[in-house]
Amino acid sequence: MQIIDDIKQMQTLGLEARAAGQTLAFVPTMGYLHSGHLSLLEEGRRRGDRLALSIFVNPTQFGPHEDLDKYPRDFSRDEALARSAGVDWLFYPRADDIYPPDYATYVNVTGGLSEVLEGACRPGHFQGVATVVAKLFNIVQPHLALFGQKDFQQLAVIRRMTDDLNLPVRIVGMPIVREADGLAMSSRNVYLSTEHRRQSLAINQALRLATRKVAEGVTSASVVLDSARSRLQAEPDLMIDYLKVCNSTTLQDTAVIDDSALMLIAVKIGSTRLIDNHLLLQSWPGP
Amino acid sequence: MQIIDDIKQMQTLGLEARAAGQTLAFVPTMGYLHSGHLSLLEEGRRRGDRLALSIFVNPTQFGPHEDLDKYPRDFSRDEALARSAGVDWLFYPRADDIYPPDYATYVNVTGGLSEVLEGACRPGHFQGVATVVAKLFNIVQPHLALFGQKDFQQLAVIRRMTDDLNLPVRIVGMPIVREADGLAMSSRNVYLSTEHRRQSLAINQALRLATRKVAEGVTSASVVLDSARSRLQAEPDLMIDYLKVCNSTTLQDTAVIDDSALMLIAVKIGSTRLIDNHLLLQSWPGP
Repeated sequence: MQIIDDIKQMQTLGLEARAAGQTLAFVPTMGYLHSGHLSLLEEGRRRGDRLALSIFVNPTQFGPHEDLDKYPRDFSRDEALARSAGVDWLFYPRADDIYPPDYATYVNVTGGLSEVLEGACRPGHFQGVATVVAKLFNIVQPHLALFGQKDFQQLAVIRRMTDDLNLPVRIVGMPIVREADGLAMSSRNVYLSTEHRRQSLAINQALRLATRKVAEGVTSASVVLDSARSRLQAEPDLMIDYLKVCNSTTLQDTAVIDDSALMLIAVKIGSTRLIDNHLLLQSWPGP
Repeated sequence: MQIIDDIKQMQTLGLEARAAGQTLAFVPTMGYLHSGHLSLLEEGRRRGDRLALSIFVNPTQFGPHEDLDKYPRDFSRDEALARSAGVDWLFYPRADDIYPPDYATYVNVTGGLSEVLEGACRPGHFQGVATVVAKLFNIVQPHLALFGQKDFQQLAVIRRMTDDLNLPVRIVGMPIVREADGLAMSSRNVYLSTEHRRQSLAINQALRLATRKVAEGVTSASVVLDSARSRLQAEPDLMIDYLKVCNSTTLQDTAVIDDSALMLIAVKIGSTRLIDNHLLLQSWPGP
């Protein structure tokens, strides 16, 4: 495995791989790798002749009062995990190289897709995401890029951006990976105290409850939202940022449950913000 | 020469040329080709194994009261000129394919470079330019792209965007090509009546006058601006949109003439808008 911090060197490797007819798979991350990331790397390894992983805690997708500074980092642990996952190129750029002093260009995905949910809670977040992903695609030059479905809206925004800008990259969305007790894997889980870790289970339990109601025949979004809300509100330190049932393509609110109905949850527990989601007509994975 | 209207087909040809180790030169235009465009094609032909020309009158770079609908078009004339210029691929996409109904993504070059001059006169113009050029680069996959220096600020914005988004494209700026009487070549010159065509000469004459003053030792921007303004104001139907001396790197106003001092002029003559510019310490080309 090669560790690369130079943008030009990474781009040259990507372009050379393309020119040599190799398929290049790419997993962009902010590091502090967990089993969710490893599932992306595994699929990337399976699909690509070459596998690139980027680790870059992207400052432009954090708001001024968010957790950029305390975002968890452990490069040597990530490096070991990347090595055992069969990564060929670990791209680890410096923020000053990605955003030099005279940097001025931003990619904006406008419209409903990016304005709701995370877009409403975190102004500027998706501008930061779309911009850095466009840059990383141009630097790494992958044929396919893999993203987890926990950040469902991010995946939708990246698909839209990739299509709209005609980037020759296939976007692959991969299922959410969960802890044994159902909590969705997230680098931010490490922030949680034991008590908050316990309370955080309400998120996946609310999704499971909603999924069960729908399996029992409930078709009203407001009914499943009520039961999910009750479950979340049972936890004293859990504050709901949003709890929605949306069309999974448009991400606009939907009143009647159908195949595309997706429940999305964002909460704060103490100072930790967690998100999760589930397609309500899909059976719950695992126990 | 192949005429291509399909985005995927153009992208496949570009990617295949790259994979085959060929250098691909690209000249993006809005068509109605003139000698300025032909000079870009000639240089592209010299530098590239393959030469692509795009003709696309990009709606998103026109304001609501601008000349999108009446912008001059003559595809069969352009086709013949492209053929004799040795173009391999003439990319001629439909607006509905470039901007499908659910299109949502825009590239913005923020900051001083895009806010002044054309950016101040034509809100949204550079968002349209940056977006379509990013898309065309991703579709055509060129190694180098050639642009005329008449649209000096456009060239600067495109350089900034290409650098910032890490696009693997070399941007080549080419000298302004002028009519025998000094009027800068522009597709819009065809709009001019005989009388307005005569009055339009004031633009290049103002630039020449300023250049001569500087050659004679004047170093004050306001002095050369005054003489250029007087020349422009001598024409009854000519309205000044802007007349500036700027630093050619930052495009911010400059008070003292140095190597980087660029005079930029935008005027309206009747309903036709024309622009031109000259580096004041460079001798005037031609007679």
